[in-house]
Amino acid sequence: MRKIRMGMVGGGEGAFIGAVHRMAANIDGQIELVCGAFSSTRDKSLASGRALHLPGERCYADFQTMMAAEAALPGEERMDFVAIVTPNHLHYPVAKLALEQGFHVMSDKPATFDLAQALALREQVEATGLLYGLTHPYTGYPLVKEARARVVAGELGAIRKVVVEYPQGWLAERLVDADNKQAQWRLDPDRAGISLCMGDIGVHAANLAEYVCGQKITRICSDLAAVAKARILDDDGSMLLRFGNGARGVLMASQISVGEENALRIRVYGDQGGLDWCQQEPNTLWLKWPDQPAQMLRTGGSYLGELAQANTRTPAGHPEGYLEAFANLYRNFAGQIQARLGGIEPSAAALDLPGIDEAVRGMAFIEHAVAASASDVKWHDLPDY
Amino acid sequence: MRKIRMGMVGGGEGAFIGAVHRMAANIDGQIELVCGAFSSTRDKSLASGRALHLPGERCYADFQTMMAAEAALPGEERMDFVAIVTPNHLHYPVAKLALEQGFHVMSDKPATFDLAQALALREQVEATGLLYGLTHPYTGYPLVKEARARVVAGELGAIRKVVVEYPQGWLAERLVDADNKQAQWRLDPDRAGISLCMGDIGVHAANLAEYVCGQKITRICSDLAAVAKARILDDDGSMLLRFGNGARGVLMASQISVGEENALRIRVYGDQGGLDWCQQEPNTLWLKWPDQPAQMLRTGGSYLGELAQANTRTPAGHPEGYLEAFANLYRNFAGQIQARLGGIEPSAAALDLPGIDEAVRGMAFIEHAVAASASDVKWHDLPDY
Amino acid sequence: MRKIRMGMVGGGEGAFIGAVHRMAANIDGQIELVCGAFSSTRDKSLASGRALHLPGERCYADFQTMMAAEAALPGEERMDFVAIVTPNHLHYPVAKLALEQGFHVMSDKPATFDLAQALALREQVEATGLLYGLTHPYTGYPLVKEARARVVAGELGAIRKVVVEYPQGWLAERLVDADNKQAQWRLDPDRAGISLCMGDIGVHAANLAEYVCGQKITRICSDLAAVAKARILDDDGSMLLRFGNGARGVLMASQISVGEENALRIRVYGDQGGLDWCQQEPNTLWLKWPDQPAQMLRTGGSYLGELAQANTRTPAGHPEGYLEAFANLYRNFAGQIQARLGGIEPSAAALDLPGIDEAVRGMAFIEHAVAASASDVKWHDLPDY
Amino acid sequence: MRKIRMGMVGGGEGAFIGAVHRMAANIDGQIELVCGAFSSTRDKSLASGRALHLPGERCYADFQTMMAAEAALPGEERMDFVAIVTPNHLHYPVAKLALEQGFHVMSDKPATFDLAQALALREQVEATGLLYGLTHPYTGYPLVKEARARVVAGELGAIRKVVVEYPQGWLAERLVDADNKQAQWRLDPDRAGISLCMGDIGVHAANLAEYVCGQKITRICSDLAAVAKARILDDDGSMLLRFGNGARGVLMASQISVGEENALRIRVYGDQGGLDWCQQEPNTLWLKWPDQPAQMLRTGGSYLGELAQANTRTPAGHPEGYLEAFANLYRNFAGQIQARLGGIEPSAAALDLPGIDEAVRGMAFIEHAVAASASDVKWHDLPDY
Repeated sequence: MRKIRMGMVGGGEGAFIGAVHRMAANIDGQIELVCGAFSSTRDKSLASGRALHLPGERCYADFQTMMAAEAALPGEERMDFVAIVTPNHLHYPVAKLALEQGFHVMSDKPATFDLAQALALREQVEATGLLYGLTHPYTGYPLVKEARARVVAGELGAIRKVVVEYPQGWLAERLVDADNKQAQWRLDPDRAGISLCMGDIGVHAANLAEYVCGQKITRICSDLAAVAKARILDDDGSMLLRFGNGARGVLMASQISVGEENALRIRVYGDQGGLDWCQQEPNTLWLKWPDQPAQMLRTGGSYLGELAQANTRTPAGHPEGYLEAFANLYRNFAGQIQARLGGIEPSAAALDLPGIDEAVRGMAFIEHAVAASASDVKWHDLPDY
Repeated sequence: MRKIRMGMVGGGEGAFIGAVHRMAANIDGQIELVCGAFSSTRDKSLASGRALHLPGERCYADFQTMMAAEAALPGEERMDFVAIVTPNHLHYPVAKLALEQGFHVMSDKPATFDLAQALALREQVEATGLLYGLTHPYTGYPLVKEARARVVAGELGAIRKVVVEYPQGWLAERLVDADNKQAQWRLDPDRAGISLCMGDIGVHAANLAEYVCGQKITRICSDLAAVAKARILDDDGSMLLRFGNGARGVLMASQISVGEENALRIRVYGDQGGLDWCQQEPNTLWLKWPDQPAQMLRTGGSYLGELAQANTRTPAGHPEGYLEAFANLYRNFAGQIQARLGGIEPSAAALDLPGIDEAVRGMAFIEHAVAASASDVKWHDLPDY
Repeated sequence: MRKIRMGMVGGGEGAFIGAVHRMAANIDGQIELVCGAFSSTRDKSLASGRALHLPGERCYADFQTMMAAEAALPGEERMDFVAIVTPNHLHYPVAKLALEQGFHVMSDKPATFDLAQALALREQVEATGLLYGLTHPYTGYPLVKEARARVVAGELGAIRKVVVEYPQGWLAERLVDADNKQAQWRLDPDRAGISLCMGDIGVHAANLAEYVCGQKITRICSDLAAVAKARILDDDGSMLLRFGNGARGVLMASQISVGEENALRIRVYGDQGGLDWCQQEPNTLWLKWPDQPAQMLRTGGSYLGELAQANTRTPAGHPEGYLEAFANLYRNFAGQIQARLGGIEPSAAALDLPGIDEAVRGMAFIEHAVAASASDVKWHDLPDY
Repeated sequence: MRKIRMGMVGGGEGAFIGAVHRMAANIDGQIELVCGAFSSTRDKSLASGRALHLPGERCYADFQTMMAAEAALPGEERMDFVAIVTPNHLHYPVAKLALEQGFHVMSDKPATFDLAQALALREQVEATGLLYGLTHPYTGYPLVKEARARVVAGELGAIRKVVVEYPQGWLAERLVDADNKQAQWRLDPDRAGISLCMGDIGVHAANLAEYVCGQKITRICSDLAAVAKARILDDDGSMLLRFGNGARGVLMASQISVGEENALRIRVYGDQGGLDWCQQEPNTLWLKWPDQPAQMLRTGGSYLGELAQANTRTPAGHPEGYLEAFANLYRNFAGQIQARLGGIEPSAAALDLPGIDEAVRGMAFIEHAVAASASDVKWHDLPDY
């Protein structure tokens, strides 16, 4: 078994999420960064790569050059997969080219610029048989996995009500600061897509709800708005939901909730019990019962299920954080690649990772959220593409 | 100055909220229970009254007898006001008769069986000039008053987003237990009115939002449901909101959220700051700021405003609870009566009490919530009657 | 059954704890304030009494007059018991005279000025057969009763470790403000006794530990200090403990812990489980287990034991506070008096109240804490007087 | 600039803390594991090394072989420093040999088996001029650094009271499970040293207190005990403290506090303000003030000081955990090595790392805690060696 080799597109100096992807990939020592096209110019890309201890010849000027050059390398050197950490509008072109050149893809979300691209990407992934992972990191938390396991096992009974919310405050004010690189492109429809808030964080909330409940959102009633001055895209949105099994729900995402961090939270109520998890305290999962004391489950608890255990790496009783959850995505993706290299079936743990279906699902959610918000009719279908 | 004399209609043995009203009225030693029509029969009423140390002759068989008998007593004996703690369908008939006989009224919510009654009641209150109080006890918490004071003073800037929720779990199961007297009438449209969940707790949430924000809800998009088996009325509901100033909001109320207590919570976000208060920890009010640490305000803090101070009675740093909040309503109502007896203006603190306007408002909310839920159109006006 | 009649000594305008006692006595409507010697002059006492709606003739100039006058009243008028809410140095003289005149006594803590008085008081209580209650209100919380029930029932196994603490911040600064009446006498050895911090709050912590554990503290190692400038008595203290069964412990009490409210907290660890309760959130009791999720018990939970249920008066799921806990002491004390009036045995719930044994115990604790602190020897016995 | 090369002694399969050190070293991609003597046999060491993607020739049979072999390698290949993650009794021999061979040392705590070794080690470190880091990871949390910065800057005024505690539950039961490798050696005086609880976690608490307060503990009163059956060494201990500036304190450490995780917590009270930090929620630091609301500082807040900012690597508002704190130690240590390689002064951030002074200090603490506990005299000096 050897280390898995990663190339990166995007994530140069001043970028936001690239460093997170690298740290997540680093933690377990199973993945090695071998190359990158980090920035929009060769010089910047080189500077970024050097700081990451890469040889100059593998710091590429652009992703097209990188794909071609890497594909030309001998098998024992060339990257196994590409991590895509660019602004949204580049996700699809990079992924498309990577797949064409035979590389697996780990992409930041939202998967593409629009739904049409996501559907095309799914066709390509299926046609190539290559691996595709999508970084919804919140589903990497061990207690989110435990939550899903409990729901799917029926411990809460039939699910009736779901409340999922993701309030943030960082876009409460108009950001005209040119230095805030990531804010700039997120506010720009040409690079971000048709939605700011739903595309950036609402899609995480929707993904979390579907993952935990094992149910698809089937109908939505949507109310999005551009609240802050001079904003083009939505920075706040609330939705009423129906799930496949008839459960009702509410989804809230907001980037103008002053003073909030990344308070992603999900509450699920069945006819037998309820649960509550929030990223502000990700190492706690509440289970609530009708006539018994609520139980506080904690990361590392010996009573947790297999998937939660498999996705915990810190000694029991020490807090884990966002990077560890993110690292679980990379570890599981690396596990899939290792299995393929070894010609074996990947483990259930390795397969528990958002992929191309979640990519399509997320883009469908974003497009329908925007369309439904513009309509006077109350309910809209959210089809399963 | 003498003690204020209270009569009570409803609240006999086995009832739920009557004992709460009595304790709330008792705490400060300024109100004296002098008579009551506690139950549907003379014997039961007498038994309840005796346990409350009332003389037999002032334990009445029904509220009609009580009103007539009390009105016939000399001024230094007869009750000053009647507390109405019956099932909903009796609120209006009792209040109407009390006002006709010249008694002030303190009523449990919702004020009446339907909006038409509430409008008639308002006319009568205005015509008689008598005092009318409505027990939305959550607005009695000192930190709720502080929250309102901060919002109204503009500390949070222009209000943009409001999230108010009231999840409970106690009706998650079908309650067929005949002993659960209050559950029985609440589930019965003939006694409860057209709504279970919105009439019982949704109306508290709406009242809290309007009180704290100093803004009226002007438009709603409503999704109510009878979730538990064999239930006729709604036991769960979610609504999208617009406020008078254009702020957006979400209101959730649920009685099938298993394991939840009375987790009434409000979050308000302006363009300068946010706040967060929850009844599960009512002695804490969070203020949140863009680039400063969040502040935790506590009941009894020397930094709180006048209304919060005036509505706190426990030594600083000791927790207060629901009864104290409820007692603030009674104290303020008694203050209004004392002022009238003394021929003086009531204090601002005494006037800070839900009254006949909130009565009409609450009934309008309930009726429109139900109507909007039945409609396919997204948005509905919530007029200011 | 009639209302129990209470007289009060101390608690006039500007006093601190008298109003708390009155509210606690009021809540359930079973106790009636009938007379008082509220202040050090007849005029002040009269003013206080008038504000409490007492007739002038039962507002006494001093407690000696009150005892004599009340004793001379016919049985159907005179007070049943006296509530003592004076500074510490008067607790004993008032209690002594009350008992001599045949009145039951409910006293604030510490019970007396020194241990010798407490021992004398116990003799007198036993000789007269009259009832004596001591207001350690924290033991009135339903979840403190639940904690004790669980420990005594052996659910935590053999108790090994106890940590009890009571940090406050209100005496962090030198209080020279003449208006702070209660601070003044507490800082004065002639009125407060030999200890400020241990006498005021350390004794609550010790009482709570012994109550919850059902074990006596048998040995102490004590470190008290007068930290703030120009302070004569201790305002901070820490102690190492041994309990009768060999368990170890730590007791901390502090009045110079800036920013702390009344954060009384107890943690108990047995060989099978642990518990954690804190007054900052008194409606939560944690039970902790070796290989199971921690459980959060809540006031009003249907799973709680009899004593917890009997001491809860608020509808389940609404927070209770300090006044309700305090009211439980008064309700239980009134229950004892009612039983005596009725010639029956008091209920177990009524008997669950700190009394003369806790009075002696508290004074022994205070004296030994001070003596042990002054010694260079590590361990000191805390005898069971 | 190149990656720093790390060798590891200990940390083979089944070990506990080795994996933590490796992940901490990995996160930032600045350190590369190049060799190791992971286990007590060559075969086991090789298996561990292979799983870590090391070439076989750098998986050594023992640390002696490793030191010699690495020293013989050319400068561009050989390790820069050794990470020592063995049981306690081996810390010193490994460190001693490493220093003799010219390698920097990063050691798990406690630094040595006894104080004498620590003093000898300090001499050697000073004589060689090599770098020595000690992994007290809790001081790596950004908010612990913020706490220290605030105290040292005088924001809390003169420090008067310190409460530091570290309750755990994992040794509440007798562990005879042979598989629990790390429990076994920790319970064995020949490998662990003279203390279990104080050597394992009490020393963290003492280090944290001295780090945050910028004050040395100068006197102690100690009460240690072996509580669980058949245990030789202490598994629980409480201490009264005095600090250099006269402040009082309490230190508690326990491994028999059933149900507790790693609830390391420190509270510091000055005459102007207080602070509170707990590892259970490491991203929150409370500042408390006499007459102002408490402030909740959060990891990543823009209002935090330089050291806190420098030690944060996750996007603001996402939780960090134990691994990130631990990684800060490695990053800062790597920064020191880089500075030396580059011939420049290390940054203040890089120097903010426990080193040989903390090593001596910790061993002194452990030895005096044990000696003081055995004594009948109350207070013992804790000299500054």
